[in-house]
Amino acid sequence: MTRVAIVGATGYAGAELVRILAGHPRVQLTMLTSRQFVGKKFDRVYPAMSGVVDLTCEAYDADRVSQAADIVFMALPHRIPMEFVPQLLKRGQRVIDLSADFRFHDAALYESVYQPHTAKEYLTTSVYGLSEIYAGQIRTAELVGNPGCYPTSVLLPLIPLIKAGLLDTGSLVADSKSGVSGAGRSPAMASHYCAANESFKPYKVAAHRHNPEMNAVLSQQANKPISITFVPHLVPMTRGMQTTIYATPAHSMKPADVADCYRSAYAQCTFIRLCPENRPPDTLHVRHTNFCDIGFAFDASNNRLVLMSAIDNLVKGAAGQAVQNMNIMLGLNETTGLHTVPFPL
Amino acid sequence: MTRVAIVGATGYAGAELVRILAGHPRVQLTMLTSRQFVGKKFDRVYPAMSGVVDLTCEAYDADRVSQAADIVFMALPHRIPMEFVPQLLKRGQRVIDLSADFRFHDAALYESVYQPHTAKEYLTTSVYGLSEIYAGQIRTAELVGNPGCYPTSVLLPLIPLIKAGLLDTGSLVADSKSGVSGAGRSPAMASHYCAANESFKPYKVAAHRHNPEMNAVLSQQANKPISITFVPHLVPMTRGMQTTIYATPAHSMKPADVADCYRSAYAQCTFIRLCPENRPPDTLHVRHTNFCDIGFAFDASNNRLVLMSAIDNLVKGAAGQAVQNMNIMLGLNETTGLHTVPFPL
Amino acid sequence: MTRVAIVGATGYAGAELVRILAGHPRVQLTMLTSRQFVGKKFDRVYPAMSGVVDLTCEAYDADRVSQAADIVFMALPHRIPMEFVPQLLKRGQRVIDLSADFRFHDAALYESVYQPHTAKEYLTTSVYGLSEIYAGQIRTAELVGNPGCYPTSVLLPLIPLIKAGLLDTGSLVADSKSGVSGAGRSPAMASHYCAANESFKPYKVAAHRHNPEMNAVLSQQANKPISITFVPHLVPMTRGMQTTIYATPAHSMKPADVADCYRSAYAQCTFIRLCPENRPPDTLHVRHTNFCDIGFAFDASNNRLVLMSAIDNLVKGAAGQAVQNMNIMLGLNETTGLHTVPFPL
Amino acid sequence: MTRVAIVGATGYAGAELVRILAGHPRVQLTMLTSRQFVGKKFDRVYPAMSGVVDLTCEAYDADRVSQAADIVFMALPHRIPMEFVPQLLKRGQRVIDLSADFRFHDAALYESVYQPHTAKEYLTTSVYGLSEIYAGQIRTAELVGNPGCYPTSVLLPLIPLIKAGLLDTGSLVADSKSGVSGAGRSPAMASHYCAANESFKPYKVAAHRHNPEMNAVLSQQANKPISITFVPHLVPMTRGMQTTIYATPAHSMKPADVADCYRSAYAQCTFIRLCPENRPPDTLHVRHTNFCDIGFAFDASNNRLVLMSAIDNLVKGAAGQAVQNMNIMLGLNETTGLHTVPFPL
Repeated sequence: MTRVAIVGATGYAGAELVRILAGHPRVQLTMLTSRQFVGKKFDRVYPAMSGVVDLTCEAYDADRVSQAADIVFMALPHRIPMEFVPQLLKRGQRVIDLSADFRFHDAALYESVYQPHTAKEYLTTSVYGLSEIYAGQIRTAELVGNPGCYPTSVLLPLIPLIKAGLLDTGSLVADSKSGVSGAGRSPAMASHYCAANESFKPYKVAAHRHNPEMNAVLSQQANKPISITFVPHLVPMTRGMQTTIYATPAHSMKPADVADCYRSAYAQCTFIRLCPENRPPDTLHVRHTNFCDIGFAFDASNNRLVLMSAIDNLVKGAAGQAVQNMNIMLGLNETTGLHTVPFPL
Repeated sequence: MTRVAIVGATGYAGAELVRILAGHPRVQLTMLTSRQFVGKKFDRVYPAMSGVVDLTCEAYDADRVSQAADIVFMALPHRIPMEFVPQLLKRGQRVIDLSADFRFHDAALYESVYQPHTAKEYLTTSVYGLSEIYAGQIRTAELVGNPGCYPTSVLLPLIPLIKAGLLDTGSLVADSKSGVSGAGRSPAMASHYCAANESFKPYKVAAHRHNPEMNAVLSQQANKPISITFVPHLVPMTRGMQTTIYATPAHSMKPADVADCYRSAYAQCTFIRLCPENRPPDTLHVRHTNFCDIGFAFDASNNRLVLMSAIDNLVKGAAGQAVQNMNIMLGLNETTGLHTVPFPL
Repeated sequence: MTRVAIVGATGYAGAELVRILAGHPRVQLTMLTSRQFVGKKFDRVYPAMSGVVDLTCEAYDADRVSQAADIVFMALPHRIPMEFVPQLLKRGQRVIDLSADFRFHDAALYESVYQPHTAKEYLTTSVYGLSEIYAGQIRTAELVGNPGCYPTSVLLPLIPLIKAGLLDTGSLVADSKSGVSGAGRSPAMASHYCAANESFKPYKVAAHRHNPEMNAVLSQQANKPISITFVPHLVPMTRGMQTTIYATPAHSMKPADVADCYRSAYAQCTFIRLCPENRPPDTLHVRHTNFCDIGFAFDASNNRLVLMSAIDNLVKGAAGQAVQNMNIMLGLNETTGLHTVPFPL
Repeated sequence: MTRVAIVGATGYAGAELVRILAGHPRVQLTMLTSRQFVGKKFDRVYPAMSGVVDLTCEAYDADRVSQAADIVFMALPHRIPMEFVPQLLKRGQRVIDLSADFRFHDAALYESVYQPHTAKEYLTTSVYGLSEIYAGQIRTAELVGNPGCYPTSVLLPLIPLIKAGLLDTGSLVADSKSGVSGAGRSPAMASHYCAANESFKPYKVAAHRHNPEMNAVLSQQANKPISITFVPHLVPMTRGMQTTIYATPAHSMKPADVADCYRSAYAQCTFIRLCPENRPPDTLHVRHTNFCDIGFAFDASNNRLVLMSAIDNLVKGAAGQAVQNMNIMLGLNETTGLHTVPFPL
């Protein structure tokens, strides 16, 4: 059994890591850290876990984490991992970081939307954890920068078509929608029940920090600069993320070309499901799973492709993909511990 | 007091008409018809109205409706109004029809997405009831084709900029989201609580019947053919509709140009509210009101404008705008009976 | 026009007061105070009100409030009104306080569940603002202690039957359920969307501070000590409160006796609606209204009466009843400004 | 591997059976029947299952079911199982029926609330499938009548205290609340999103068919006739059931007596979790699990015990308990395939 620690286990992504890893047949959860709940049993913070998870939250300490674990998940707000991750790497740990701190290879780009980066030397070797695309590099990575939820939902439907040269890369618009858990566990006005319920609204319009992340990955994949317009919206539901992408074809094409491209690119990818034409991706169908459902339609009247995806923002958009990456790093089948039967409702 | 009848009063749009008109200071509700609930008191169908609305649902009969009312609202599924409306017009009634039957001037366009039109002779004189745009013609109209909810949410932010020549009309994409009441009152799998709750999904992707309606109005306003890509989505909430539109500017422009254009176009329009830059339109802020909140942002990196609107699909998107049109037709202030104080939550 | 000030206008009850009073035909809102938003326009805190309410939040100052207003609503957390209310009364204001501070005549009872009372001298003259029951005293009151939401939902169905001697007063159990807005506007874990959504739970079981308030009023009405078991629950919805009460009849009785008792007690009460037997009270039917819907059933097998009520916790349970009390104090019809047409959905 | 068939697999309980059994390590799903979707792949009815469950819905046929399976779950509306179950029993199948048809030993009682019973001869040998209480008989049963969701939520907290003689059995009141999935998959007005959302209401007040079921089991357990008052309510959420029970102690007692009683009765029961005093059972904590969380409080002022439970109505309230019964019947650990890690949110 591989021993695993979660640093920052009581935020939503951390708790979802606990959920998945506690049921994972090949690992043992040995340590949970929390800044807010040191000394408190984890199931007092998340009573759903009573009688199932029997760990107590500890304070983060690099030495103790390294002694307890063979691989470490870090689920903290950006800026803190910059400090902690190097400590763990130096102690020989492999680390999967769910923050933005190690998603960028270009420190200047990171700094343009976050803050000064204090561990730039790791940016060249960290691997971007979009499992289906970077599995080869993830396998041997010491440090994985796990993707943002929005980038995951935007990149998975886009990358195969971009690489196949099917899209006019200057035409890309991504309109994304997220459930409220994306805003995190800390109480705030935006996540107040009475503010979110019966409310649908855009926010950070063309100004979200996940936008440069998408641009960087798309540019790398296409070997040329790509920039997309990205607008996130908030949906009155707990979990789920849906993205609709608008793109002009690079040249005359048939819908079957798109389907073929996806089928070929994702042939080996259990967690990518291509939806039939008459059933667009629905967040309800991927809730609590690591699936990314993808669909598309061709608007012939306007010569425009519509690509659609649906994920669970806390699973494929965060903890699930992180465990998928761990599986790859450990040489396990990537679906181990993740391929549960979805709920019908 | 003007006497008013509602034909089809027990669907959601019809019931919302009852709600508004029962509180309207200048009209008297004299007749409600229903196909399903003939002989039943309206407040047995909508118990919220108990003690407030004391009318009984009747069967539709052209003569009886004409005797009872000076102006008639028709809130029936398309195809039926084609048959009923001419009967009422011939009896001298003025009619506001909430279906699609009299929204198009071009019968062929209507027939391409609905079914054969059996009252084409009225299509040339019927007026499209987008109040802020067609008030001049609505004033004297005998027959108003009240706009669809999606077209209302798309056209109000687009038309001023289109008319001012600010947009590349080949670049238009509208990504819309609607609450479940838009699917109507008849029980169906799509509006089952357990199917809609915690679900967000696109539907009728680039294939919704409101798309040609938008195209037709935009083309008329621009005096040239315009076609837009339109994708509707379903949101787990009862009421509300939000649209985000993506457009490339026709030429170099400043954000202030957009603001100026809206301010000028909607200077006299109480129900259009321009949102401050940092607060995009939110369905919660317009719920139960006739407001259309409009906002915009300029994505300078990609030279793309983002326009946003929020309405209550049952009010400005249906019953409220219909009453606004009635006010205009009757020479009243367009806000009469509609300008209630919004709910804080 | 009577000039009205709201002290504490930016909490949920305060904002709902703004909503109702801004649309009230006989009063003018002249001053809003807020602790958190001094100097900010009210419609920046509640953007739904943009273009409708044009007031700026001010700091509380007894002199300024007294100059601005003829009657003052106080919508602050308990303990603060103890300090402010005497200041206003001394300046000749009539005050309607929505906190618990002036709901009790017995200071010791108040102190047993809140904290030391520093304005006990006002407890003997303050009037409990349960409009339908205490209208006679409210009319001339200088100070009204507006009832809690739970007590309103429990007392209105109970009092007529208690006064008629129909119930075994030792048998009373009230099981109440409230929407999340009852927890107030301040962000907290309990009102986090992801904690409240898809969650139903009891809280403060037989230990809620509204319980002694109910007991005191029931005892006064019955002229003997009455104590009831009260358990509140949290419902995943924004507004609404439903209470189901279980009671053993005092003696053999027929269901018609209950109906007769209600009809007689509430004959003149517009805001009390008796539901037909086969349609129990539903929060959806009273949402956004000042109605209290009441229903009942007799469980003959167990000789037990089931009484049910539904209110909007922010309207009849707070701001609406406060305005109803103001109407009574001003000699207006109690429904003025409150009798809007309910929403069908 | 035991071969399992589900008759009526496309209703909500049936689909949840598919979900659990598809992930069960000791059984193989061999046949799904459906009346509405014969010939359709199951994952077209429940797209969440795409790529995971690869079975096609078939028509029911006693012979084919018996050939395909070693044990059969029946998830059909009552009245149909009366006809089907005997056919299967005669062919040597063991059957777990989720309808009411085989829950009663007294045909007259069944007939008083359902309809004439046509397979009365099986009522004496069928075993009531409340797993924690009847495990001994379930082990060898040929036919299990799986409990209703409400009875499960009422009986589990009540039975230990009743058997211990702690309660005045004439004082029992159960106030239950259910999510909308309890109303089933067939679209109906009551489960329309816009009717259920933002609505909380009682229904079938003291007249629900689960009431006699509770009474019968309690009476059997107590060896004397017991009748309780039962009122169900509908909550705006998909899954979950919470019950609050009010009871007078039979004699003077301490809260510790109740805790001791539960601990002793449920010492070996993994799926019963006793909640700490300050955290009442919450449906969110048991969602998607087979747990029944139980809590209690003593209202000393009124000498009344308050018992509380929370279950997932589709799991412990239906499909989960049915699988738990299957495990017991097959001699497996009762938690096999059911003891998944709960979701933190």
